[in-house]
Amino acid sequence: MTAPREVVRRILADRTDQPKGTAKVYVPANIALVKYWGKRDEALNLPVTGSLSVSLGPLGSHVELSRAAGPADEIRLNGAHLPADGSFAKRASAYLDLFRPRDFFFAVQARNTVPTAAGFASSASGFAALAKAADALFGWGLAPRELSILARLGSGSAARSLADGFVEWHAGQAADGMDSYAERVAAEWPELRVGALVLCAEEKPVGSRAGMKRCVETCEFYREWPARVARDLAELKAAIARKDFAALGAIAEGNALAMHALMAATRPPLLYALPETVAAMRTIWAVRATGLPLWFTMDAGPNVKLLFEAKDEARVREMFPGIDVVAPFG
Amino acid sequence: MTAPREVVRRILADRTDQPKGTAKVYVPANIALVKYWGKRDEALNLPVTGSLSVSLGPLGSHVELSRAAGPADEIRLNGAHLPADGSFAKRASAYLDLFRPRDFFFAVQARNTVPTAAGFASSASGFAALAKAADALFGWGLAPRELSILARLGSGSAARSLADGFVEWHAGQAADGMDSYAERVAAEWPELRVGALVLCAEEKPVGSRAGMKRCVETCEFYREWPARVARDLAELKAAIARKDFAALGAIAEGNALAMHALMAATRPPLLYALPETVAAMRTIWAVRATGLPLWFTMDAGPNVKLLFEAKDEARVREMFPGIDVVAPFG
Repeated sequence: MTAPREVVRRILADRTDQPKGTAKVYVPANIALVKYWGKRDEALNLPVTGSLSVSLGPLGSHVELSRAAGPADEIRLNGAHLPADGSFAKRASAYLDLFRPRDFFFAVQARNTVPTAAGFASSASGFAALAKAADALFGWGLAPRELSILARLGSGSAARSLADGFVEWHAGQAADGMDSYAERVAAEWPELRVGALVLCAEEKPVGSRAGMKRCVETCEFYREWPARVARDLAELKAAIARKDFAALGAIAEGNALAMHALMAATRPPLLYALPETVAAMRTIWAVRATGLPLWFTMDAGPNVKLLFEAKDEARVREMFPGIDVVAPFG
Repeated sequence: MTAPREVVRRILADRTDQPKGTAKVYVPANIALVKYWGKRDEALNLPVTGSLSVSLGPLGSHVELSRAAGPADEIRLNGAHLPADGSFAKRASAYLDLFRPRDFFFAVQARNTVPTAAGFASSASGFAALAKAADALFGWGLAPRELSILARLGSGSAARSLADGFVEWHAGQAADGMDSYAERVAAEWPELRVGALVLCAEEKPVGSRAGMKRCVETCEFYREWPARVARDLAELKAAIARKDFAALGAIAEGNALAMHALMAATRPPLLYALPETVAAMRTIWAVRATGLPLWFTMDAGPNVKLLFEAKDEARVREMFPGIDVVAPFG
């Protein structure tokens, strides 16, 4: 077992900190089309399988990082000061500890353009932005691969938030995770649209970290998850390469349902769906049966993300008023 | 591959038909606590795994069987004559073909005390009653094990409807299924109650037969289903032996959720749940969190069956007005 600090030491190697006054960065949030569910190393957030996401362009996290006077980090989120003993501030400070110089305190100003609790995970872009901001603040000049590894130490899916477009996170095999990083898939899909259908803005009763741990430990079906993901990943990359939207939609929807199936078969069961979630799924299927290519994906929560093409945006907005629509390729 | 007719020939062996005027029988419907999902032989309804059900006492099927003048079977269900080309009459006549003497037509009067479409399967008790009535009509005097095999040829779960109380269906290994039969589990549980919560009385869009076939063929997770069932069966039998209601409930609920998980991970997905189903599940969990031992199971449909004890019947009826409650042990 390698400790996170040791990974940071290896990445930074002989780089020395050259602190600037302030670093300002932005990274997009991402939504997985083939999901990350299950860790092979809890401390390093090393995944059991690879995954593939699409970055959400203008929805993401802005972070300004600079030195604070101390004696503690000063963390602001969307303008509000966060108490140091709150769960968010504690998690951010613990992450910053990984590369904190002696007697150094951070001033963090984070601003999410992901609507808070819109069902798009903001922790992925949050930690990715912290990693990118630290790199800029200390002048390390890390390569994208190294930054992705650094971000992963904060939150697994953060590894995928350092590039635009489609991003594949390679599971890797090394015990220290130096081969577990994400990189952009060379493909453009300007017509792709992602819509956020917010059904419940409350915090989920069981977080992803605890949920996936319980699932890996108690769900028999999890043994087949790596095979499922391997097939879905291969098919999704082929669908992206030939720009086959129906295939992309079917793979993403099926993979999300399979992940929720794992959760339902966990002991005790994890059910993230609400009645409204099932109603939305059935509406999407009914719409698709009329010929409109509309698909969905879901993360570890009750909200549904719609997948469709630009040409159908007006009709989709009509059927789902109030959705946030993102064009991941601008 | 053994044909159903050949199985019937082996069971009847050197018995000769000694037809009586009319046979009248009754068999109970049953609800599985550890589910039957997936066949190893489509023609003989041989299951991949064992299963364990509880019979529903007064909810079941009455069948009167006699000889009809012909030139076709005359089939009545709940008083109404069924057209010979309807799916129900065709399936019944095809089943009766298995032991139809030359130039013989059947008059079938079937009456279900299972509320039609109450979410309790009536095909199990229907085929079990036909098998039992044929045995009585022709005076074969078959043993319970032989009757169970005969019933299975009509509908898999019918194998479990020939006894009261808890009934275990042994999967068996033989190609001709002569070791795949159900028998009563030696246990009484007078306090056990089963409640039917009917959320939707419409016919399901994909029947169990087609659903399990698609699942076995396309769902990776199905490979782990036999291990899951083996564990659930062993734990359920132990829970029954020590009359541990919380264990019985947890095993039944978890097994049903795992079966629905398999369905959700099937390609394309099978989702039997309605919004109302998820709402009912969440209500049950909320009720349980208050200390009332209330659990549920579900078959391949949207309806929910409540499991509870006699002492809590009044409270459960208060929370779920209009449910049908059965005391399987009288």
